[in-house]
Amino acid sequence: MKFIQDYSDLLEKEVAEISFPSEPKNLYEPLSYFLTLGGKRLRPLLTILSGELFGEKKENLLPAATAIELFHNFSLIHDDIMDNAPLRRGKSTVHEKWNPSIAILSGDVLLVKAYQLLSSYSPNTLSELFLVFNKTAIEVCEGQQLDMDFENKEIVTEEEYIGMIRLKTAVLLGCALEFGAIISNASSINRNNIYDFGLHLGLAFQIQDDILDLFGDPLKVGKQVGGDVLSNKKTLLSIVARSNVNEEDLRELNLLVNEKNQDQKISQTRRIYDKLNVKAICEQTMRTHHELAFRALNKIELQNSKEKIKKLSDFIFFRDY
Amino acid sequence: MKFIQDYSDLLEKEVAEISFPSEPKNLYEPLSYFLTLGGKRLRPLLTILSGELFGEKKENLLPAATAIELFHNFSLIHDDIMDNAPLRRGKSTVHEKWNPSIAILSGDVLLVKAYQLLSSYSPNTLSELFLVFNKTAIEVCEGQQLDMDFENKEIVTEEEYIGMIRLKTAVLLGCALEFGAIISNASSINRNNIYDFGLHLGLAFQIQDDILDLFGDPLKVGKQVGGDVLSNKKTLLSIVARSNVNEEDLRELNLLVNEKNQDQKISQTRRIYDKLNVKAICEQTMRTHHELAFRALNKIELQNSKEKIKKLSDFIFFRDY
Repeated sequence: MKFIQDYSDLLEKEVAEISFPSEPKNLYEPLSYFLTLGGKRLRPLLTILSGELFGEKKENLLPAATAIELFHNFSLIHDDIMDNAPLRRGKSTVHEKWNPSIAILSGDVLLVKAYQLLSSYSPNTLSELFLVFNKTAIEVCEGQQLDMDFENKEIVTEEEYIGMIRLKTAVLLGCALEFGAIISNASSINRNNIYDFGLHLGLAFQIQDDILDLFGDPLKVGKQVGGDVLSNKKTLLSIVARSNVNEEDLRELNLLVNEKNQDQKISQTRRIYDKLNVKAICEQTMRTHHELAFRALNKIELQNSKEKIKKLSDFIFFRDY
Repeated sequence: MKFIQDYSDLLEKEVAEISFPSEPKNLYEPLSYFLTLGGKRLRPLLTILSGELFGEKKENLLPAATAIELFHNFSLIHDDIMDNAPLRRGKSTVHEKWNPSIAILSGDVLLVKAYQLLSSYSPNTLSELFLVFNKTAIEVCEGQQLDMDFENKEIVTEEEYIGMIRLKTAVLLGCALEFGAIISNASSINRNNIYDFGLHLGLAFQIQDDILDLFGDPLKVGKQVGGDVLSNKKTLLSIVARSNVNEEDLRELNLLVNEKNQDQKISQTRRIYDKLNVKAICEQTMRTHHELAFRALNKIELQNSKEKIKKLSDFIFFRDY
């Protein structure tokens, strides 16, 4: 799918060309560093493809697309501090390479830079983008807070978990797509539908991520299998398991929380999950959201082809495993 | 000056009436807590008085004024983490009462809430407020970074120091005043002049704060005398002293850095500063910016009386000492 690579390259260039002032060095160097750690730039790509779907030119979509990417990176820099994460894409996180104060402040300035990119739009377009962006930014913060709260919460229901990933992950995909629709002056019905497409795609994407953590092919997924299990993270897998488990297996799951032998911990957990059919149950939930996403996309009445946006969602979704 | 108290009460009520969602509790409780710690609400008062000066109604100015106050509180919450400050206005800071992660995230959401308040304006007004707000927000972050950088910098010149407090403190006063002018559709010349008034008033205000730290009446200033000296903070006083000092006194100042006896440290520092005429030199710089502020204010051609705004600046400035 060459067009994805082409668009990705274009966005990579756009991000690389953001020029930060040279001073204060400790404020702007971390941003130049962090923004070149890579990533697939999928979120801004959604803005571009959505805008093109509704007939807008790429050039007019780039500032909003870049704003989405900067916002995403702001949230990563701050989340990394809160999660005490030493690495991001195999490289030191900002608070590790510099220090937490610098990571807080350069994250702050990146959030403002994201807003600043929106000022290239006409007042009417700006005011519409602004409403969606503010709402989304608040939701993403709420999602991160819920995720942290869940660490200390004994029982998290499936509904609560889906609510959390909706806020933490999915709404930003919806926002990225709605940005494209706003800039193209799409109807409000189309705006809502493209937003819903992103929202459910985001949910399906995050659930897939949870499944891949334990059931993915490590060579294809590109990270250690069972990372979530080892860190006792609450994911859809662990929540589904605990809501279907019998007393005996629950005792074992509780013992596994403190298991020091990593291989043992992963294989035993997986054995119980297999018995409980956890993978298939989660895949069903994932497929439901995937269907809801495409139902929303199909409601959009347009002459233009939806092929590209469908191919992108195939690309970010349904990776082999 | 009853009108200041009246306006302050109005703003206090406005801030107290901001309703945050009840959940996530760990995100919003810290904000309700922090916003009721008080303060004089001087920054939003500047927006109101500036807008009234240019003929606008109070009601139309309140959202922008409140946005300024929320932004200020966002920066305080994050600065307190960076400065490792246990107390703010005599009460626990957010990172102390909760934890640093919660302080980061609730600060983030407060910044977005500040932006969100601007969406009550018409698209044209919003887009003008937006430009000034983004620029100011970035500058305030730069100022905070420079302030942190100065801690590890041996020599800071007076020019560098003034540049830092311009960014960290003064531009927000300029922005608060310009907001009032923008909402009232003031001319761009008047906008610039009211901004400059705020900028120089802010510089004079911060320099006064530096002077009061060592030379203020503790009963009137309401905090410990010599706090900046005890923490070896770079202020205009210490910078002026070091640029005028002879070798012998410099040696003594350097020894005083590690002096453990607090009374000794303060009185010896003050003795050297007195010998070098530091207070008078700093007061001269302060007066210069005070004059520049009023020169800018006087350039504004208006039928309306500037009495209130002058009284407010007398109130925040030239406190007895």
